[in-house]
Amino acid sequence: MTRQDAEGLDAADPLARFRGAFALPPGVIYLDGNSLGPPPLAAHQRLAETIREEWGEGLVRSWNEAGWIAAPMRVGSKIARLLGAQPDEVVVADSTSVNLFKLAAGALSLRPGRKTVLSEFGNFPTDLYALQGLTALLGERAKLKTVAPQDLIAAIDEDTAVVVLTHVHYKSALRWDMAKVTALAHAKGALVLWDLCHSAGAIAVDLTAAGADLAVGCSYKYLNGGPGAPAFLFVAKRHQASIRSPLTGWMGHAEPFAFEDGYRPATDIRGQITGTPPILGLAALEVGVDLQLEADPGTVEAKGRALTDLFIAEVEARNVDPDLALASPRDGAARGLHVAFSHPQGYALVQAMMARGVVGDFRAPDIARFGFSPLFLGFAEVWEAAQILCEVLATRAWDRVEFQTRAAVT
Amino acid sequence: MTRQDAEGLDAADPLARFRGAFALPPGVIYLDGNSLGPPPLAAHQRLAETIREEWGEGLVRSWNEAGWIAAPMRVGSKIARLLGAQPDEVVVADSTSVNLFKLAAGALSLRPGRKTVLSEFGNFPTDLYALQGLTALLGERAKLKTVAPQDLIAAIDEDTAVVVLTHVHYKSALRWDMAKVTALAHAKGALVLWDLCHSAGAIAVDLTAAGADLAVGCSYKYLNGGPGAPAFLFVAKRHQASIRSPLTGWMGHAEPFAFEDGYRPATDIRGQITGTPPILGLAALEVGVDLQLEADPGTVEAKGRALTDLFIAEVEARNVDPDLALASPRDGAARGLHVAFSHPQGYALVQAMMARGVVGDFRAPDIARFGFSPLFLGFAEVWEAAQILCEVLATRAWDRVEFQTRAAVT
Repeated sequence: MTRQDAEGLDAADPLARFRGAFALPPGVIYLDGNSLGPPPLAAHQRLAETIREEWGEGLVRSWNEAGWIAAPMRVGSKIARLLGAQPDEVVVADSTSVNLFKLAAGALSLRPGRKTVLSEFGNFPTDLYALQGLTALLGERAKLKTVAPQDLIAAIDEDTAVVVLTHVHYKSALRWDMAKVTALAHAKGALVLWDLCHSAGAIAVDLTAAGADLAVGCSYKYLNGGPGAPAFLFVAKRHQASIRSPLTGWMGHAEPFAFEDGYRPATDIRGQITGTPPILGLAALEVGVDLQLEADPGTVEAKGRALTDLFIAEVEARNVDPDLALASPRDGAARGLHVAFSHPQGYALVQAMMARGVVGDFRAPDIARFGFSPLFLGFAEVWEAAQILCEVLATRAWDRVEFQTRAAVT
Repeated sequence: MTRQDAEGLDAADPLARFRGAFALPPGVIYLDGNSLGPPPLAAHQRLAETIREEWGEGLVRSWNEAGWIAAPMRVGSKIARLLGAQPDEVVVADSTSVNLFKLAAGALSLRPGRKTVLSEFGNFPTDLYALQGLTALLGERAKLKTVAPQDLIAAIDEDTAVVVLTHVHYKSALRWDMAKVTALAHAKGALVLWDLCHSAGAIAVDLTAAGADLAVGCSYKYLNGGPGAPAFLFVAKRHQASIRSPLTGWMGHAEPFAFEDGYRPATDIRGQITGTPPILGLAALEVGVDLQLEADPGTVEAKGRALTDLFIAEVEARNVDPDLALASPRDGAARGLHVAFSHPQGYALVQAMMARGVVGDFRAPDIARFGFSPLFLGFAEVWEAAQILCEVLATRAWDRVEFQTRAAVT
């Protein structure tokens, strides 16, 4: 493909208009929206209003009058629409790590008599850490079993309370078949808890169609919610009345402002909230989610797949370095919206590309990882990023690691 | 005291200059900074810069280059200075509710063989709820015992792992003697976990002098960190290497970016962090903390006590309603910086005052609660608020509950 061909794809891109909704520095090709999405332009205004009018003018009354107290449910219901969930099945709360702890504990409570929490080696570390912390705390009543991905399905047995998997792997981008895994787990009487960090805003997830039980995810990647934005969690309606969060804070109480001494859990999704909602973080997140809702999830995924396909094809077509190997599935249907290449000089490669304005990231020991956020990236940019990657490889340009922007890509 | 006398106190107030650092709507006497502090003016600029420059220009590189990854420790070390703690004993993380869970669990792990978590009836609900959730999860290995405040000291025994108390009670403002309770608990081999929500930024807490073990607190009250601002926690240096958080997220790992499968806790205060730090919330919080650090904590507490004394004296001097009763300690040394009055029409009283521009809040069943933030309140304002409270009582002006601002108080 030529650069002109890529420009032709941009001209026909139904999502092209979204680029103008983001603040991206000129001269940067940002292939790290899968780590931290850039700010939507509207985030500036929204935060300024939240501080000046809601916090400054409304003061404490804004908990009711500006809808702060309902914000976790309101933003959650919007995220639900992106995930094929019902509006009252998703809520924004805490961090992904804390939500994993809550829902894995909740899953164990839904499957009394079963002790095993099952996950895979090499899952995103915080997922494994949260499960290690939970099972250590529970002692004899739970155990964490981690197996290789190819052994996972066979490892689901009658002691499995919950299978905890990241839908799209943070390093390889390998995508689990959500409906299939869920059905197989259900057949063994187990639940599944999905980590959607690399799926939300990227893949056209359909939690309802997949029969999903539980899910968590962060909102600072493809949802562009801001650094450390509050996370979300999903509990299927059929589980809400019986699942119990071990983190019983006042906002999960059936009547928080009754100020009772005894905890009575809300029996809807609110029962999974813990402390006071983080309003500034929620305000920025809502901007990112509102923007995402303007795009069709299927169109988003299709464009993302086309971008990753283009990147892989252009890098491999140039064939500049036999040490470079695709470390993601070649089949786009089995992949998320990032692409991993392994290279012995992976770290230096990423740094040298960054010095040329292409921002990706490195994951030890040898992975150069590039994310393709469909809302703000164009095909010509991705073509150019592939070209730059290959130039860096061809010239062994590891010398410059200082970041600087390059001429704007138009 | 006359209004002129109160104005004289304002003229001599060493903290008077701080009023100009806050955005407060004209015509409002804000006696609810103990629920939600108002925005410092500098918060606008700081958030605008954080979004535009750090998030927008720096993108993912800001985790290192803008100091995001260190922000929980940096802001924590500043809060430490307000609390008489060492800089590496405080960190910003999660919510108060989540931090209570973590540190109460940690305290149990520090006192193996002891099962009792001891607290008081009527403690702030989320404190009791968090402890109920934790002890329910631990089953046979822990139990929560709640007693009346006057029975608390006698209830500390050889099975007590940790005493969990709110330093300044959210409703009555009754202040526990931190050093005395800590010494008595230590004498029985127990730890103490203090909730400093109504203390931080108000009372000249000295955790080191008190020999304190553990503490948590929110930052959206007297620290003016913003609605739902991230909370803080304190672990005395001597406990840091051995205390274990049950919420093991990647940011508490000794090397988060090694992406190891196995959790290895950081053995300093970072071991109490869980997920990705909430940067927008931390940015706003740091503004509030920086402002607070410009004032001497002893001066802050002394002014706050003088404001509460003035309010009580002016209300009682007018003696307009025999049903109004002080529900806070009369002795300022035994009180925090808010004042509670009980009245059968407490709810209506608060609403009618609000219609006249005085913002307080109501706590069931009959408490009208007024907070006196020393940084932005003046003596003449407080004098006027007392006058308005008494006018409302004298005229039984329960009719108007709609909020509106009144002429500016100068």
